Amino acid sequence: VNRRRAVLGAGAAAALFGAALARAAEAGYAAADLQHARRLIDRGLADGTAWSLVESLTTEVGARPAGSEADTRAAAWAQAAIRRLGLTNVRAEELPIRVWQRGSATARLLQPYAHSLVIASLGNSVGTAPDGLAAELAYFPDLAALRADTSDRARGRIAFIDQPTERTRDGRGYGRAVAARVEGAIEAARRGALGLGIRSISTARDRVAHTGAMRYDLSVPRIPAFAVSVPDAELIARLHARGAVPRLQLAMNNHSEVDATTRNVIGEVAGGELAQEIVLIGAHLDSWDLGQGALDNGAGVAIVSAAAALIASAGARPRRTIRVVLFGNEENGFDGARAYGDRYRDTAHQLVAESDFGSGRVWRLRSRVRRDALPLIDALAALLKPLGIARPADAANEGTPGPDAALLMRRHRWPAIELTQDGTHYFDVHHTENDTLDKVDRDALPANTAAWAAVLWLAAQAPHAFGPLEAPAA
Amino acid sequence: VNRRRAVLGAGAAAALFGAALARAAEAGYAAADLQHARRLIDRGLADGTAWSLVESLTTEVGARPAGSEADTRAAAWAQAAIRRLGLTNVRAEELPIRVWQRGSATARLLQPYAHSLVIASLGNSVGTAPDGLAAELAYFPDLAALRADTSDRARGRIAFIDQPTERTRDGRGYGRAVAARVEGAIEAARRGALGLGIRSISTARDRVAHTGAMRYDLSVPRIPAFAVSVPDAELIARLHARGAVPRLQLAMNNHSEVDATTRNVIGEVAGGELAQEIVLIGAHLDSWDLGQGALDNGAGVAIVSAAAALIASAGARPRRTIRVVLFGNEENGFDGARAYGDRYRDTAHQLVAESDFGSGRVWRLRSRVRRDALPLIDALAALLKPLGIARPADAANEGTPGPDAALLMRRHRWPAIELTQDGTHYFDVHHTENDTLDKVDRDALPANTAAWAAVLWLAAQAPHAFGPLEAPAA
Repeated sequence: VNRRRAVLGAGAAAALFGAALARAAEAGYAAADLQHARRLIDRGLADGTAWSLVESLTTEVGARPAGSEADTRAAAWAQAAIRRLGLTNVRAEELPIRVWQRGSATARLLQPYAHSLVIASLGNSVGTAPDGLAAELAYFPDLAALRADTSDRARGRIAFIDQPTERTRDGRGYGRAVAARVEGAIEAARRGALGLGIRSISTARDRVAHTGAMRYDLSVPRIPAFAVSVPDAELIARLHARGAVPRLQLAMNNHSEVDATTRNVIGEVAGGELAQEIVLIGAHLDSWDLGQGALDNGAGVAIVSAAAALIASAGARPRRTIRVVLFGNEENGFDGARAYGDRYRDTAHQLVAESDFGSGRVWRLRSRVRRDALPLIDALAALLKPLGIARPADAANEGTPGPDAALLMRRHRWPAIELTQDGTHYFDVHHTENDTLDKVDRDALPANTAAWAAVLWLAAQAPHAFGPLEAPAA
Repeated sequence: VNRRRAVLGAGAAAALFGAALARAAEAGYAAADLQHARRLIDRGLADGTAWSLVESLTTEVGARPAGSEADTRAAAWAQAAIRRLGLTNVRAEELPIRVWQRGSATARLLQPYAHSLVIASLGNSVGTAPDGLAAELAYFPDLAALRADTSDRARGRIAFIDQPTERTRDGRGYGRAVAARVEGAIEAARRGALGLGIRSISTARDRVAHTGAMRYDLSVPRIPAFAVSVPDAELIARLHARGAVPRLQLAMNNHSEVDATTRNVIGEVAGGELAQEIVLIGAHLDSWDLGQGALDNGAGVAIVSAAAALIASAGARPRRTIRVVLFGNEENGFDGARAYGDRYRDTAHQLVAESDFGSGRVWRLRSRVRRDALPLIDALAALLKPLGIARPADAANEGTPGPDAALLMRRHRWPAIELTQDGTHYFDVHHTENDTLDKVDRDALPANTAAWAAVLWLAAQAPHAFGPLEAPAA
């Protein structure tokens, strides 16, 4: 209750809830279901389960790259955790994958003076020859400059893209910058570069490097690709501004296409009369290897598990089945989401949703549902307003419900809800060694748990279907 | 001028200055000298020299551990820089030193699961045997707990001290915590430990480790000593709280007692009638090897050089000689300060002072002068009040003027002034890979330059001596 007061005064909250309940009843929800949603919110706001879960996962399992021994431990941890929380039909659905494995990576300026750069191999990058690679850097301020380059400047050099990442609440800054990481090596190789370095796709000033997936193109050679810490990138930029041409000694050693196994961990709150229809709430269980996967995506695993547990423990059986899916290998291939879609393509999905944006507070609800379901979504949004969650009119039905859920939405026309979290600080630690438990905003977790519990419950109780979508989602 | 307004409204500042000038004249300063001090402050507040210097040093030289090739480049850089700024009698006074050199350092949890810790060897630590060392951790919440331990718990293990560092403005939190780093290995070895790990003496939550000097005692074995990042220390603490006994694989490789050369770089603003008396303003030129030595102590080098340059370029010759001393090897032995004291023991020093606390704004003036000089110091402090610099009554004459200057003050009874900088964020990056240019508070540098210029000028013009101190300083 204290936590709700922090969002809104208790009196004002009660008034808002009252109005929202009336509106939701008009849209077609049953009054008892609405009262139950409100109880879930109240209980969620006082619920410490999400914190306990992320604390446990980061302490007892740690980093858990897909296909690793730690990934297997994470799956055992997750099944035990959600079973203990009262979810049923708990299982791990295995799938074979081929994974990339990080080896060592070092980079040292040889010119204009000896200096060790803090770097990380990008995911999927090949290594260098065993004795490494020495080459000059060819500086490009951003990916557009490399794309526009028609000179021979990158040939025989390591192309360096100094792409900045803008801090934004909704992650747009990351979205604009990340192509440098994903596609930079292709553009560099096209111009004869021997390697690609990028400024970390990060909003922080820490001396850590940001990893994440990159890809190659069959038409050009596979060159080693790495990110350097932001302070090191700024040093390179300052040297470049002085007319110096830094020379780099690079050594990387990675393994690609290693056969492995991962799995989707699934647990449910069994539905009643419409048990065969699924309200899917996801998060991904895997993480990059560098940190503890605390924000990405321990927090999401914790929030969605806690939200479903809240419903399970509140005692009322939902009409539809609420299914928690902790996806395998989101980070480097979406294998879990694809396998889930293949397996359940013929199952009716009332909703797909996901929490995968750290621990920041939810501030927005957007949907992607059939037009005739919009009044139900608007009513649901009104109910979340006292939590500080808005439903802006602009692009209200163009939501993107997190990476795995979005893939399913697009492939299967399953309807979706996005609860947008505040990502202002998310890209300070995302995909780095700094993604550790201490970065989790413990105080924001209960409100997020409460919001998801209400969404899942009312999606399960809704008087009619939210989908399927009329047209493939963009 | 804009920067002064940021500290205090222009009208209020002018009134304060007026009162301070009257008081300073009463204490014995000449009116013309006071007017000149005020001009120096005004010019300092608009002066970008300090920023240019630290930008140049961190870009063109980088990290510069004493005795290294980079240290030699730093000395060449410094001589060229202060000569260009108009200082005279510029020279480098060489001295032989024996240095410690960092090699590689890795630590990996073997139990309860595989996990790489981010660590750094502490300065002066020996390495492990070439094939490393595997041992359990014995957890101690702080150094006091290890000191109080009479059990056999550390024997055959790696003692781990989880000493927290409190964030404070004046660095007291660091002062209270740092003994764990300096003396921890002695206490651990006394109890039969095979190694010592400590939580980084740091106020940040970054996944970087804090280095710094430690020492051994002839009575006990020299065991390898290292710091782990704060998030890793917290993981160890959480595992310990669960009853787990982490087992660690440690490999370190360092070199001690390597013969090398360093130097004090010196430049002056030549005095007039009392040219043989020295107003010494210092900073240390060396840095630890992990970052760029931007805050520790590039900022200090830049501030004191800019302050002296301001006096040189303002055209009025000081009565006493103002001497900038950029000390060698402050970080691991104070060799430069000792050598300076040996060489100039018979030279009268009107003042020793130093800037070595990052780039935070100066907020306090404390002194350590002969009692009869206190009115002159009080008057000087009143003149700095418009810059937001206070002279608290408490312990006003118990100042500590930075590490090198304090050593000289203690050994030679030379009087001292401390301009205390705001160190609230200093220990977030101090002695780590994160000590890079981007952490320098560019906006705070002009006010600090202005304050030092006024202090140096008036110390040089003072009607009588500030020292020598009556008794050895504590």
